[in-house]
Amino acid sequence: MSRMNEQSVRAAIVALSSALIVIGVAPASAAEVRYDPGDTVYFTYCHAHPPAIRIRPGDTVITRTKDAANDVFQPTDKTVFPRLDLTRVNPQTGPFYIEGAEPGDTLVVRIDRIGLNRDWGWGASIPYFGALAPEYKTAMITDPVPDRLFIWRLDRSRMLGVLDLPNSKIGKVEVPLRPFFGTIGTAPAGKECISSLIPGPHGANMDFNEVVEGVTMSFPVFEPGALFMLGDGHAAQGDGEIDGAAIETSFDVTFTVNLIKGKKINWPRLENDRMIMSIGSTRPLIDALRIACVDLVNWLVQDHGYDKIEALQLLGQAAHLEIANVVDPQYSVACQLDKRYLPR
Amino acid sequence: MSRMNEQSVRAAIVALSSALIVIGVAPASAAEVRYDPGDTVYFTYCHAHPPAIRIRPGDTVITRTKDAANDVFQPTDKTVFPRLDLTRVNPQTGPFYIEGAEPGDTLVVRIDRIGLNRDWGWGASIPYFGALAPEYKTAMITDPVPDRLFIWRLDRSRMLGVLDLPNSKIGKVEVPLRPFFGTIGTAPAGKECISSLIPGPHGANMDFNEVVEGVTMSFPVFEPGALFMLGDGHAAQGDGEIDGAAIETSFDVTFTVNLIKGKKINWPRLENDRMIMSIGSTRPLIDALRIACVDLVNWLVQDHGYDKIEALQLLGQAAHLEIANVVDPQYSVACQLDKRYLPR
Amino acid sequence: MSRMNEQSVRAAIVALSSALIVIGVAPASAAEVRYDPGDTVYFTYCHAHPPAIRIRPGDTVITRTKDAANDVFQPTDKTVFPRLDLTRVNPQTGPFYIEGAEPGDTLVVRIDRIGLNRDWGWGASIPYFGALAPEYKTAMITDPVPDRLFIWRLDRSRMLGVLDLPNSKIGKVEVPLRPFFGTIGTAPAGKECISSLIPGPHGANMDFNEVVEGVTMSFPVFEPGALFMLGDGHAAQGDGEIDGAAIETSFDVTFTVNLIKGKKINWPRLENDRMIMSIGSTRPLIDALRIACVDLVNWLVQDHGYDKIEALQLLGQAAHLEIANVVDPQYSVACQLDKRYLPR
Amino acid sequence: MSRMNEQSVRAAIVALSSALIVIGVAPASAAEVRYDPGDTVYFTYCHAHPPAIRIRPGDTVITRTKDAANDVFQPTDKTVFPRLDLTRVNPQTGPFYIEGAEPGDTLVVRIDRIGLNRDWGWGASIPYFGALAPEYKTAMITDPVPDRLFIWRLDRSRMLGVLDLPNSKIGKVEVPLRPFFGTIGTAPAGKECISSLIPGPHGANMDFNEVVEGVTMSFPVFEPGALFMLGDGHAAQGDGEIDGAAIETSFDVTFTVNLIKGKKINWPRLENDRMIMSIGSTRPLIDALRIACVDLVNWLVQDHGYDKIEALQLLGQAAHLEIANVVDPQYSVACQLDKRYLPR
Repeated sequence: MSRMNEQSVRAAIVALSSALIVIGVAPASAAEVRYDPGDTVYFTYCHAHPPAIRIRPGDTVITRTKDAANDVFQPTDKTVFPRLDLTRVNPQTGPFYIEGAEPGDTLVVRIDRIGLNRDWGWGASIPYFGALAPEYKTAMITDPVPDRLFIWRLDRSRMLGVLDLPNSKIGKVEVPLRPFFGTIGTAPAGKECISSLIPGPHGANMDFNEVVEGVTMSFPVFEPGALFMLGDGHAAQGDGEIDGAAIETSFDVTFTVNLIKGKKINWPRLENDRMIMSIGSTRPLIDALRIACVDLVNWLVQDHGYDKIEALQLLGQAAHLEIANVVDPQYSVACQLDKRYLPR
Repeated sequence: MSRMNEQSVRAAIVALSSALIVIGVAPASAAEVRYDPGDTVYFTYCHAHPPAIRIRPGDTVITRTKDAANDVFQPTDKTVFPRLDLTRVNPQTGPFYIEGAEPGDTLVVRIDRIGLNRDWGWGASIPYFGALAPEYKTAMITDPVPDRLFIWRLDRSRMLGVLDLPNSKIGKVEVPLRPFFGTIGTAPAGKECISSLIPGPHGANMDFNEVVEGVTMSFPVFEPGALFMLGDGHAAQGDGEIDGAAIETSFDVTFTVNLIKGKKINWPRLENDRMIMSIGSTRPLIDALRIACVDLVNWLVQDHGYDKIEALQLLGQAAHLEIANVVDPQYSVACQLDKRYLPR
Repeated sequence: MSRMNEQSVRAAIVALSSALIVIGVAPASAAEVRYDPGDTVYFTYCHAHPPAIRIRPGDTVITRTKDAANDVFQPTDKTVFPRLDLTRVNPQTGPFYIEGAEPGDTLVVRIDRIGLNRDWGWGASIPYFGALAPEYKTAMITDPVPDRLFIWRLDRSRMLGVLDLPNSKIGKVEVPLRPFFGTIGTAPAGKECISSLIPGPHGANMDFNEVVEGVTMSFPVFEPGALFMLGDGHAAQGDGEIDGAAIETSFDVTFTVNLIKGKKINWPRLENDRMIMSIGSTRPLIDALRIACVDLVNWLVQDHGYDKIEALQLLGQAAHLEIANVVDPQYSVACQLDKRYLPR
Repeated sequence: MSRMNEQSVRAAIVALSSALIVIGVAPASAAEVRYDPGDTVYFTYCHAHPPAIRIRPGDTVITRTKDAANDVFQPTDKTVFPRLDLTRVNPQTGPFYIEGAEPGDTLVVRIDRIGLNRDWGWGASIPYFGALAPEYKTAMITDPVPDRLFIWRLDRSRMLGVLDLPNSKIGKVEVPLRPFFGTIGTAPAGKECISSLIPGPHGANMDFNEVVEGVTMSFPVFEPGALFMLGDGHAAQGDGEIDGAAIETSFDVTFTVNLIKGKKINWPRLENDRMIMSIGSTRPLIDALRIACVDLVNWLVQDHGYDKIEALQLLGQAAHLEIANVVDPQYSVACQLDKRYLPR
């Protein structure tokens, strides 16, 4: 098929997508693209970054991501500072320019595979970071948590993270691994360039532990090409990331993009086998919850024929709320509903 | 066995409990007590209420509770107002005076059975109530949600709540029933008398959907006899009770009390087959989370030999957070940890 | 005049008040009543407290109040604990039963005089207290501020509070004294008994530094007789009481009560020569602000003929906001407007 | 003086400044520069904007600023939408590149003169904007405030803003004018480009009504040249800008810049004849307060020889808090202290 013909086919497919919401249905000509970022990473989500590669709706990308500390730690390290370079935190792979994506569209990304590619990850208590101690926004005159780095062994055969706790009676803990991306999203609106540490309407650092292999996410497109990026691999993380860091590690990742032309969404959404979810990010925490649940109500009303007050009544009895993070400059909450409540 | 001997035995058992935390191990002489509240209900948690009955550690109580509207609605009602009597909201059964309970002890309550005793419950959108619209604390100059009552049919054989949604495309929804107590606790500290609508260190209206049949809860004892009460039966409820009401109904209930002498806790705790949980209640939401998680850290440190920073690190990777309510005068959050992390 | 006739006259006066809002116009028969509380103080605002004395609208009361620590400190003390008795904090003088006051009325209290009766007051940094360090609601796993008591000398001739700061270069500071009541209010609604440390719709511990000699306050009446109390004298205090305590001292006080029959208000209000103010109390801080400003909008609409959106527009350009406290279990904010904007 | 010599003199002056904090002392060679922005305005604070002009420490700039709606309204308009172009809101004049300014320095700006250059300004109630109604972060499912534009007449001889209120009994209000800049600051850290609507450590949209003629402000320098900008003239504004807009208008402005080499500050600071102030910006409101007050404590400790706990004690009795804005994406609070408390 000539390139010209291919483009015509693509245009038709894009048009079809905008009519049908064909999430995950790849066009016939979908390509599988490998992208090696090398050391080309970004620390902001920004319209001005040159695209890493250009891909098309339906394409699948195979790439990898560095850990949140830009891979600077060694397994023998005991503290976060001074090794951490604060100007190079939370590196992102990308941006991926999706052909045909225009402001007002929705970018759909299926995370096909997440692969651990290292046998350790790091956790930490970080001074002025985390909700249970004085931090950079909840500023206090008293001392913060001590700087302490924890090196978790990643047992990939048993899918367990293993950590010695020498000062605790239990001596050692093993937590189930459930790898996910802490940071994932598109270039923000308004020609803003926003630190990759900050989640918002464009996604980014939501630190939501349901962004695992197999899910499909939707993001608003604010800039031509969407400029999708991802990074901040977490081998495991509790709800909220309340200590300030997950089990941070590097990832191999495969994802597939699609586009819903002319469909405008306001906040990231996630769909897995069982649930649909809206994810709101702001402070205070209650407002992140409000954003997520109001977006879910609007979703039910606009796409699924619900009356607004009836949708609210249903959510009152069936919503599942998850606190994604309470550590980033904006907190994130997901408001979820079982798909059984979507009309056929 | 004479009463005198019985008391000696009880004293020994109580002493044993305080040493061993023998949750759920009833003394040999434990009684099963039936209590019919009739119309004797209370709308505050308060040291001054006369005990409904006096029971002893190990005793099991069989009683019932009215719904949160004091059973005033009829299944044909369409609105909350004006039928609702605002001075008689969230009636509580009790207080149960536990012999031997003194300030500084911990009251342990196992919820043995929750029985639905009615074939309907009510949900509602209530003006100035609920996190997604102007309310009594998040005051606004704009209009609140409309007053609308929803009557859910309780299908006890299938354990489903069924609601017609005439204005929505789906027409009807069925949600799984999972009955739990919205309000449960002890008399508060400081000679305060606190509306049963308000959760706090003494428990009360946490609206936490894990307070189901089979769990064991612990409460601080602030007053002699503890003065345990419960009510506000919910046939089902989503996280947060974001619309302002669950599926509200009356319950039959069986519970068993125990006492841990000399063990002081600061906030309610809950244990089920899999998890231990601390429940914090306040506004803003992040502070309810902080209370719950700091209490859980302290629990791990004091009872389970964890180092504080190591406990924080574990919670960062393994905590499960649940938003219990964002509708009451104080919000509630539960911070949870799998029991696998407790040393033998 | 016989008692019977007197009562008839009073009834007429009360009726007149409800029609005219005759704030500060004392009936002809107004009495001046001296009340010596001795050690009779209360630590809750509560319907169940026996009245200290019964007074009538128009009466003036001369009494005194203990300091917030129940006068337990000595000027030589260096720390708050262990001398402070936590079960006896923030003692209140009263309650004063105002004859004729019924739920739904408004109690009007003019503070005629505040007299310092001691030549020292105490300030403190108190562990787990105050907005700039870990506290009882903003719970953290890190250390709180140290326990330190500061004894301020009260120079009544120059109206200055004087404190040596031995560890600071400046060596000594002198702050202007502006005595006011930290805690003042009526018995709360709903048969609640609420710690005197907690502000709310009934007033109480607002810690608002404009409650000075000469102002007139209004409070909702929730219980027969209103059950007015006051205490917590502050010789001076910055906005917010951000360290957790003002310059705490005992007071002589003279106040005059009046009643507006049949006028229902929802939150405390304050009027001085220049401004009218509504005072909202809750957490989070923004909601205290919302309550105060929405109440002020409603006040302008209901009593002064403003259109709601036009009132909002005026407040946008002319409101003065003051943060009263960020230390109590509920924060307080005052929303204020210059009287020039009230139509004649 | 040759350019080369001039530079040497400047270098010496800059060095002197860093030693002495010579705020407002202009170097001998200070220039007065006129800059006409024409239509060159920016809607983000960003390292990447080309400098409008380059100036030197000590230089005085005479320029002007457009109103927050980019001057699109006419005095006959009745609504904000659809005339408002949401991609062109809050235009900023600049950036001014200050020679010698490097990251880690402090930029000092004295506002010499603010001149009203128009005889009207606009206020508004704006849907989904403002703290007293559903907004973009405090999202709700209920209706927002109506879209209504208010045209204020600016009486420059009497310095009054005059507004007809046709639906209110008072008919007309006159508020004192006190012109100030709502938005003023430097390029942010971390290569972020941040909407001019968002205040932060770099200043920007603090909407603080003390930024009037005569004050001196300090800002962190995060980028070479500092890239100072300003705009968003407010003829008057109440505390908090609670309705979502001030009396918005265009300004003539004269300001003088200076530099403190090697002095790093973390948040904007303001000094007038009487007070020093730190300004914190974030949500929730209490955290903006915490940032401001902790910064003020640190200021007292680092520059004025205070012990930290003694500084806290002083602020507890003498701090003045002002709520600058509760409408922008981040709220702003100023923590203030009388200069009398600074040691000579």
